[in-house]
Amino acid sequence: MAKYAIGIDFGTLSCRAVLVDIHTGEVAAQSVYQYPHGILSEALPTGEALPPQWALQDPEDYVSGLVETVSGLMHESSAGAESVVGLGIDATASTLLPVTREMVPLCHTGAFCREPHAYMKLWKHHGGEAAAARMTETARERNEPWLACYGGKISSEWMFPKILETLESAPAVYDAADYFLEVMDWLTWMMTGQLSVSACGMGYKALYAQGQFPDSSYFEALHPRMGGIVSEKMNLPILPIGGRAGVLMPEMAERLHLLPGTPVGTPIIDAHSALLGGGITKPGEMMIIMGTSACHLMLSERDVRIPGIQGIVRDGILPGLYGIEAGQSCLGDHFAWALSTCFPEQYAVEAREKGISGHELLTEKLRGYRADENGLIALDWFNGVRTPLMDFDLNGLILGLSLSTKPEDIYLALIEATAFGTRVILDGFETVGVEVKQIVLAGGIPAKNPFIVQLYADVLGRPVRVCASDQASAFGAAAIGICAASPAVTGYGSLEQIVRTLGRTGDTMTMPDAEQSARYEPLYADYLEMHRLFGRGGSEIMHRLTRRRGLYKG
Amino acid sequence: MAKYAIGIDFGTLSCRAVLVDIHTGEVAAQSVYQYPHGILSEALPTGEALPPQWALQDPEDYVSGLVETVSGLMHESSAGAESVVGLGIDATASTLLPVTREMVPLCHTGAFCREPHAYMKLWKHHGGEAAAARMTETARERNEPWLACYGGKISSEWMFPKILETLESAPAVYDAADYFLEVMDWLTWMMTGQLSVSACGMGYKALYAQGQFPDSSYFEALHPRMGGIVSEKMNLPILPIGGRAGVLMPEMAERLHLLPGTPVGTPIIDAHSALLGGGITKPGEMMIIMGTSACHLMLSERDVRIPGIQGIVRDGILPGLYGIEAGQSCLGDHFAWALSTCFPEQYAVEAREKGISGHELLTEKLRGYRADENGLIALDWFNGVRTPLMDFDLNGLILGLSLSTKPEDIYLALIEATAFGTRVILDGFETVGVEVKQIVLAGGIPAKNPFIVQLYADVLGRPVRVCASDQASAFGAAAIGICAASPAVTGYGSLEQIVRTLGRTGDTMTMPDAEQSARYEPLYADYLEMHRLFGRGGSEIMHRLTRRRGLYKG
Repeated sequence: MAKYAIGIDFGTLSCRAVLVDIHTGEVAAQSVYQYPHGILSEALPTGEALPPQWALQDPEDYVSGLVETVSGLMHESSAGAESVVGLGIDATASTLLPVTREMVPLCHTGAFCREPHAYMKLWKHHGGEAAAARMTETARERNEPWLACYGGKISSEWMFPKILETLESAPAVYDAADYFLEVMDWLTWMMTGQLSVSACGMGYKALYAQGQFPDSSYFEALHPRMGGIVSEKMNLPILPIGGRAGVLMPEMAERLHLLPGTPVGTPIIDAHSALLGGGITKPGEMMIIMGTSACHLMLSERDVRIPGIQGIVRDGILPGLYGIEAGQSCLGDHFAWALSTCFPEQYAVEAREKGISGHELLTEKLRGYRADENGLIALDWFNGVRTPLMDFDLNGLILGLSLSTKPEDIYLALIEATAFGTRVILDGFETVGVEVKQIVLAGGIPAKNPFIVQLYADVLGRPVRVCASDQASAFGAAAIGICAASPAVTGYGSLEQIVRTLGRTGDTMTMPDAEQSARYEPLYADYLEMHRLFGRGGSEIMHRLTRRRGLYKG
Repeated sequence: MAKYAIGIDFGTLSCRAVLVDIHTGEVAAQSVYQYPHGILSEALPTGEALPPQWALQDPEDYVSGLVETVSGLMHESSAGAESVVGLGIDATASTLLPVTREMVPLCHTGAFCREPHAYMKLWKHHGGEAAAARMTETARERNEPWLACYGGKISSEWMFPKILETLESAPAVYDAADYFLEVMDWLTWMMTGQLSVSACGMGYKALYAQGQFPDSSYFEALHPRMGGIVSEKMNLPILPIGGRAGVLMPEMAERLHLLPGTPVGTPIIDAHSALLGGGITKPGEMMIIMGTSACHLMLSERDVRIPGIQGIVRDGILPGLYGIEAGQSCLGDHFAWALSTCFPEQYAVEAREKGISGHELLTEKLRGYRADENGLIALDWFNGVRTPLMDFDLNGLILGLSLSTKPEDIYLALIEATAFGTRVILDGFETVGVEVKQIVLAGGIPAKNPFIVQLYADVLGRPVRVCASDQASAFGAAAIGICAASPAVTGYGSLEQIVRTLGRTGDTMTMPDAEQSARYEPLYADYLEMHRLFGRGGSEIMHRLTRRRGLYKG
């Protein structure tokens, strides 16, 4: 009888679950669920307006997603509940919620349902930008040894700036929160009844470096009342990746149409899960997960320091190796912006008549394009910058505009800008001796868009493979689920073995076009000039604009 | 019995004619004609592709426009042909065509109908950019005294760079051309049979300063075969503004439904005509004609030197005063670009449902906006820069983009950028002591758009009036037509007297909003920073982009 694992990937706007044969890797069923509340960026469901740079969510959407997708899988497939050996989840991080001792999200309590800080702060909530800047400054002043593991700069997308923002702006929420939890740890509690946190989440998003959090004196220096944050509100077991977090409790098992006692793996961050899903187990290959934003993940035998990375964590992805994470805080969102802003009616009509999407129409208009011929240079900073600058007050730029600039030129410039931004990250890796021999692209964008894949190969000047499954993260979560089961049941001895056997990467290799690659060299130099100018202090105009916008809309 | 004059304004895309009562200024009839060929920017009518930055026209469109509009006026109105005392025209410049001795445009000859350089080069044809740069360089090396009258830099929009471009790229056209004529002079010949040129056209567009053209040795230094350009191909009477160029010949009179012998005034450039139409006869008031591009015109008692102006010409507009012309090479074209590029389908649908134009919809969305709140800064250089930089290889920029940037934000940023660009020009005037006390806006844009008028008042920090007639240029041309008639017939003794009596400026004054004006100060400082950075050598990226684009598309 076939055995299965379930992997559930909690993304930014939806979650997707797969039912995977643990020996063949075949997908027996899959299911997707859109979060009903989406992202709360302009107002709470109760009507309270939100400042710019905010991104909240309702955690209940995730619970509904869990129940709907997993029960959906079991309903769709002929596999019986008894054939499911384990279940794993991944989620975005730091996607953080304050909860009571009974694990009730504060936003679902009568006292706080109209309080923005009581909601779940999505990874891309940037309201803690000032808090993050102060955390960096204080860490530098104190020569905190862990700072270099996080690229030298603390991101507002991480856990503590979001908490510090809450303490400073809504102290009542801070006081009422018995725990601050990553959504993946909260969901794991909901399934298993066991309260613990994932070492992956803590390692990459909560400054848990080399076995410890920052000292309480550091937090006290940030805010006199924050000294106890770790000991009082985060004092929980930290579980390694590749182990079991618990087993399904009866009530949840029933809702999921699974058996009570089904093992649940330690949860993992979505991007890191994709590395596993893509079958990467060795240094030299970089996986880039291209979604609304982008994550760049690599395994390394050596401990290194790279400016602006999200983290380098030993055993953070695969036991025995360092897992390095870098990122671009805006990728596909650029293209979506172009489609919603620079896509006039006659283009929409043309796409409908041809029965193709807007992206396809623009790609069609660019077919056979010659790099450099549109004369535009853009900066891919519409949502700030992670690696290497770690600065979310930066913003986008399009330069070289003329009266003959067409929508497809803008679309192309934005794609090129994201590719240049990726190349800056690669250059940063190679500067410290982490060689990037090959690129694996994962996520919905490369799976659907060969044009972008070729452009990335041309700009990066390296062969590029596309991850076969567009559900690499869900696949990695399934591997985590297998690992949670007993080796006696699965026949696997390690996570690495599971990943080597089941991980999926495409067979077809996209090679750079030599002529286009050569044409991109001077454009990349132009991009770097703008990168330095606006990102490294040549002009402070972007910061001024963001500051003023914050003042006025806030 | 009432007496009338006809004014015909040859604009970039259409011509418009008015029949004006010479004593009351009342408009008895008006008529508009769109040029059938529009602007040839991508290909000739015969299919030959054109390089970027080109803008050609077919001169036959202008003849059709003359006949259609004037005969239309006479058909529509009850005024008899005998009541028309005179006719005046204005046109864009330098809008230049090579003709044979018989005044046949070379593009209408079998030998040259497929040759781009044989067509009429519209004012905004920028194919002679390299020629203009070399002309400036050579003039500087030779310390040519006239250079300072033209802002220190020669524009590719003027006459000689267009001719030099022809000589170098299509010497056969240069050889076959017996004359190079401004279209207004060619049209005047067509009506009167008299061959002459207007001092206004030569003064502002052909370096005819203080009574002479540049010396033949200067032209020889540019090209060994160009020494004779003035003596061989431009040796024609130069007529002052305010006089008579000739009278209507019988055949043309019949086509126009006018009497043979009707006086025709010396033609004038369209922008300069608007100053007359707006009733400006004294220093201190600046007229800004806001169309696809913008012209800034002032009268001055003193001779001054201002970087990047188009010219300062004594008697160039009104006898006895210096006429100063500055300009922005792209104004309304920015807004049209935004409408055709950054105006998505749902906006188009919304505008249709509300029965309003796209411009109106965007303005509606911006109602009550707070300056600075969109967080964008743009450079209004989509078609290069006239005053003060005189550089058509510069291009546009939008900075501060984020995922929440909406089409109306881009539209607003482009309007603000044109207002900032205007303020840079005003600052340049005041630096040399030419005080700008009040602004008169003319052209279709301010007439239809109170939002833009208020924004200009706020950014410029000065009261703004709007020229009552949206046909100021045509009105000025009518004044030129009155001046061509005998004082015994009209009762007027001078052009100044006609303009003071008939010129139209709005009575309503738009005052700056103090709060918005104050908010615009830091944004203007940001604009100036970008202006310096990209326009004055801080970064050469824009020139590189233009050069590459030229290489590839050319």
